[in-house]
Amino acid sequence: MLKVPEHQVAGHIAKDGKLGPLVDNQGRFYKPLQGDARGENEAKFYESFSSNKNVPDHIRGYFPVYHGVQLVEASDGSGKLPHMVLEDVVSSYVKPSVMDVKIGSRTWYPDVSEEYFNKCIKKDRATTTVSLGFRVSGLKIFDCQESGFWRPDKRVVLAYKADGARTALRKFVSSNSLADDSVPDCAYASEVYGGSNGILMQLLELKAWFETQTLYHFNSCSVLMVYENESGGDEERRPQVKLVDFAHVLDGNGVIDHNFFGGLCSFIKFIQDILESSDNRCENGH
Amino acid sequence: MLKVPEHQVAGHIAKDGKLGPLVDNQGRFYKPLQGDARGENEAKFYESFSSNKNVPDHIRGYFPVYHGVQLVEASDGSGKLPHMVLEDVVSSYVKPSVMDVKIGSRTWYPDVSEEYFNKCIKKDRATTTVSLGFRVSGLKIFDCQESGFWRPDKRVVLAYKADGARTALRKFVSSNSLADDSVPDCAYASEVYGGSNGILMQLLELKAWFETQTLYHFNSCSVLMVYENESGGDEERRPQVKLVDFAHVLDGNGVIDHNFFGGLCSFIKFIQDILESSDNRCENGH
Repeated sequence: MLKVPEHQVAGHIAKDGKLGPLVDNQGRFYKPLQGDARGENEAKFYESFSSNKNVPDHIRGYFPVYHGVQLVEASDGSGKLPHMVLEDVVSSYVKPSVMDVKIGSRTWYPDVSEEYFNKCIKKDRATTTVSLGFRVSGLKIFDCQESGFWRPDKRVVLAYKADGARTALRKFVSSNSLADDSVPDCAYASEVYGGSNGILMQLLELKAWFETQTLYHFNSCSVLMVYENESGGDEERRPQVKLVDFAHVLDGNGVIDHNFFGGLCSFIKFIQDILESSDNRCENGH
Repeated sequence: MLKVPEHQVAGHIAKDGKLGPLVDNQGRFYKPLQGDARGENEAKFYESFSSNKNVPDHIRGYFPVYHGVQLVEASDGSGKLPHMVLEDVVSSYVKPSVMDVKIGSRTWYPDVSEEYFNKCIKKDRATTTVSLGFRVSGLKIFDCQESGFWRPDKRVVLAYKADGARTALRKFVSSNSLADDSVPDCAYASEVYGGSNGILMQLLELKAWFETQTLYHFNSCSVLMVYENESGGDEERRPQVKLVDFAHVLDGNGVIDHNFFGGLCSFIKFIQDILESSDNRCENGH
């Protein structure tokens, strides 16, 4: 009944006998609580967040719905293990393009072990985390010409510099060939990034909350972006933003999450730049 | 003719035969170009900034006026050395309270040497730079009761945690005894932080610019806050914000300065919290 998620683009993958998340056919995502403190911390966050009256309703919609912890058969064959039961964000999409963007100019935080600090800062400096305030963690784009999914190798994605990240964000909303070096046409930019229900408007709503919220610090958390490629009505792209991965969330203690907020605003500027350049192209008739 | 500045609260001090900035009696501040690349880089920034048509006029006012580089007798007795000639921000104040707050959740930046990175990250983790996105670098407060200046030791200031930084920002606008542990009364909060010309409004104007500007990345740069304590008319506090210290400014290359922006917004939240709590106290008659 449970199977390996088809559209997961980052994080641990439940393949080849490894422990990872599973999905059912009713729109639920089962994320194993790992042995260390991270799983516990993420479940604790979901418990706290679900019952926190200070979180506005329109912000709650940017988080996967949480259905508690349940014992299910683990993907690595180790028997029944506790899993967080979450909303499977992509389950209602037929041909979803998906991108995972880890937000923040650091993934470590005060009071972590030296070992964890060293591991994180090395990766933060090697990727665009430090320079841009975010890094693309994974993506999967439906290729209309090939009628299949294009998915760059994880090592290629993590090696992106500023230009690589910008190109990936352009390819994500383009209709032309993805695997080669042709210039992305950004054909879907206005439908996916733009508009009153588009990615940009959703990010701006999150931004307004992060400007003042001091409840949580979302260390090493990602923005997941999804939209539909199944044809049948132009307005059916259903672009959606969700925040995911809360294993390193801490209490805000009265301080805003300046690390997430700064990175989110940098990411927003990238999206705005793409929208502006594609608007100009249309107006100029190119 | 040139002398050691009376109200400098952070940075190299021109005392005991050391190299440091000097001031004249006409409102000019002479900052020596040090032997290494930092002085050169700061002068280069001032040259670029002064002539940059993309900087709005109302933002230009938050930077010291730059009058070029001039050879003057250095404070360490080493003869004539090139100095940047800048506006002496505090020269028009009789009894200024001054605070220097270094903005950002890191003071290092991509492509620095390992030596510089190690030095910075150690200090960033030991101070509130990582946790709050800013650290108090130095302060000097006019004590009305003692009729003199109160200035905590640099080591004490750099050891502040979140509570220490919050208390310093409250003491900065308080009329009661500074050196002891009494609760700061925030008597001048509404005059200095609040109001249409107050510190908060100035910070919000800067914030709006940093939200989209991609011209410069202000690494390791400070917000300097000043106000007047000389009595003679309530409206004469003249609260003022200036950005200072540009030795580590880099080109923005189309990316917003998410590090400065996030830290600035965290700092703004601290100021807003003080204003709100002192408003409430007045309304409640305490």
